[in-house]
Amino acid sequence: MPMSNKTIIALDAMGGDGGPEVVVAGAALARERYPKIAYIFVGDEARIKPLVARYPLLKDISEIRHAPDIVPNDLKPSLALRQGRASSMRLAINAVAKGDAASVVSSGNTGALMAMAKFVLKTMPGIDRPAIAGLFPTQIAECVVLDLGANLECDAENLVQFAMMGAIFCHTVLGIQDPTIGLLNIGVEEMKGHDEVRTAAGILRERPIFGSFKGFIEGNDITAGTVDVIVTDGFSGNIALKTAEGTAKLISHFLIQTFKSSLFARLGYCLARGALRKLKVRVDPRRYNGAMFLGLQGVCVKSHGGTDHEGFASAIGVAFDLVDRGFNHRIRDELALHYGVEPPAKLEGPEEKPLLENGDA
Amino acid sequence: MPMSNKTIIALDAMGGDGGPEVVVAGAALARERYPKIAYIFVGDEARIKPLVARYPLLKDISEIRHAPDIVPNDLKPSLALRQGRASSMRLAINAVAKGDAASVVSSGNTGALMAMAKFVLKTMPGIDRPAIAGLFPTQIAECVVLDLGANLECDAENLVQFAMMGAIFCHTVLGIQDPTIGLLNIGVEEMKGHDEVRTAAGILRERPIFGSFKGFIEGNDITAGTVDVIVTDGFSGNIALKTAEGTAKLISHFLIQTFKSSLFARLGYCLARGALRKLKVRVDPRRYNGAMFLGLQGVCVKSHGGTDHEGFASAIGVAFDLVDRGFNHRIRDELALHYGVEPPAKLEGPEEKPLLENGDA
Repeated sequence: MPMSNKTIIALDAMGGDGGPEVVVAGAALARERYPKIAYIFVGDEARIKPLVARYPLLKDISEIRHAPDIVPNDLKPSLALRQGRASSMRLAINAVAKGDAASVVSSGNTGALMAMAKFVLKTMPGIDRPAIAGLFPTQIAECVVLDLGANLECDAENLVQFAMMGAIFCHTVLGIQDPTIGLLNIGVEEMKGHDEVRTAAGILRERPIFGSFKGFIEGNDITAGTVDVIVTDGFSGNIALKTAEGTAKLISHFLIQTFKSSLFARLGYCLARGALRKLKVRVDPRRYNGAMFLGLQGVCVKSHGGTDHEGFASAIGVAFDLVDRGFNHRIRDELALHYGVEPPAKLEGPEEKPLLENGDA
Repeated sequence: MPMSNKTIIALDAMGGDGGPEVVVAGAALARERYPKIAYIFVGDEARIKPLVARYPLLKDISEIRHAPDIVPNDLKPSLALRQGRASSMRLAINAVAKGDAASVVSSGNTGALMAMAKFVLKTMPGIDRPAIAGLFPTQIAECVVLDLGANLECDAENLVQFAMMGAIFCHTVLGIQDPTIGLLNIGVEEMKGHDEVRTAAGILRERPIFGSFKGFIEGNDITAGTVDVIVTDGFSGNIALKTAEGTAKLISHFLIQTFKSSLFARLGYCLARGALRKLKVRVDPRRYNGAMFLGLQGVCVKSHGGTDHEGFASAIGVAFDLVDRGFNHRIRDELALHYGVEPPAKLEGPEEKPLLENGDA
């Protein structure tokens, strides 16, 4: 079967706690959801081959590229960059750089993935630092939060660039016409916060960027749905993400205890079980798996290391959507408009070739 | 009735959205819980007097001190310090400095309260910066998190001092024998995080302080109950606190929708209602109201500005417990032990006089 009209995604098959089993099973599940998808599995060929053979859906849309090494989870990013040239992570990123794949998904070491992706794919001209972005559920729908951990400290211009990328993401991928933007702070008054957030707020009030800047927001605004895009440095963003996950777990733990606490409560649970299961699906962290590295000349998605095949399939879906909606092209146009940056020639590679005209796996 | 053996708490009656009505009603509720308590209400005497008269419990244990001014919520701390000398907030703090009260509780402007409390009560020798500490519910019991917003940026030594104060709080107030301490970070590996947290971790591993240092923890560890004391800078701590509050609200919102989504779910809710109400009480943010300013030569508690009398009563309870358990004395002893700091003479004032021998209100 020819690979024409396929969106090819390179998968680091060796990243994450579940190894190739989870990656291949996730890929098969994502294939059910996205018939246009095709894969390049990168890793230990001897382990991957029999796994791929288990799924008839993966036949004809899968290429396996052998990588002799893996990147350990505790390896420093700088060392991973030097020592990981033959790793599954690196070769999967290389597949995007060469234009063989439209995007890469990995559950491996986040710092190493960011370092390698930056080195191989390069940052977009006009973007100083890529950011990690993720979706949060809100009382209204969902919001995008960035940075979730790529940059521990950010200057005002970094935050402004994050705001711009987040707004374009909301528009192109989530279909929000005029995305609203908030800067995460510890109060909504103008005088509150670090110099960096106050300066960034000043710039966002003045500069005509895509989206509507709504000023400062606080931690509780993230899930309230106050704005569509929440901009913060990577340290605070990561703490917000993990605190939200922890709080959701705590309440789920309390709910289980509550429904076991009396006979009436047990009966009540039995009656409401169907509805409660739907809620469980709605807030399932696996649905929100797939953190996007925005600002690179290529699409790179980080899956949670501990996720299962359901979660990994969500991360593949995120990568597919980013490519399918032409997110990076839209960013490039916006940069050209507001920063006068020339569209980078390199971007044409992976981005213009999500749909391969021919070739086979 | 003589005021002997009473723990006198000064209340800023004009702070918070609910004004003196909430403060006086909260004081009456706290009096039911703590028979040893007595109050100095500070604020607009004409408004406070008839409110106090409504509660027979407050008779004989209440003094009213008139303050002509209030501190507006949006006033900068530096201006509040200069312009607020006749405010209810300032005069309530002064009551502690003079030894008339053992502690002060206010629902007013946080920044102004911290600035005034620091200026009037002074920081303890050996503590460079006071921190705001609060209790979080966990899967096991509860934990104390500090700083929640007093210090946007902290150096390593500040963080170490927070760790020490948090551990002593757990011991003296929560009764935990050997409190465990974690530093909030974006990963548990040694190389992760800002210079400040990495340096602080190094010091905490070396220096023999009270409590057991367990290294870095992440946002999800707060509610998991991984450690008893969570140490972080005020920016990250505030974002963690508010993100946790927002997430709890989101899930509560989803639960209400879930129980309304079908007839079975409605019936199930009716059956489990008793147990669910208990859960609601357990995670009620009003129960966790009352942020403590630790590191001052006097006990100062900040109540949430938007809370009701239930929440305000919790904040009074926090102040009472801190005085009753001799928290500040224990900190002083610990500082003397590890830093060689002389017990400050000034501390004797408010701390040695929680139990007035005689006098009346």
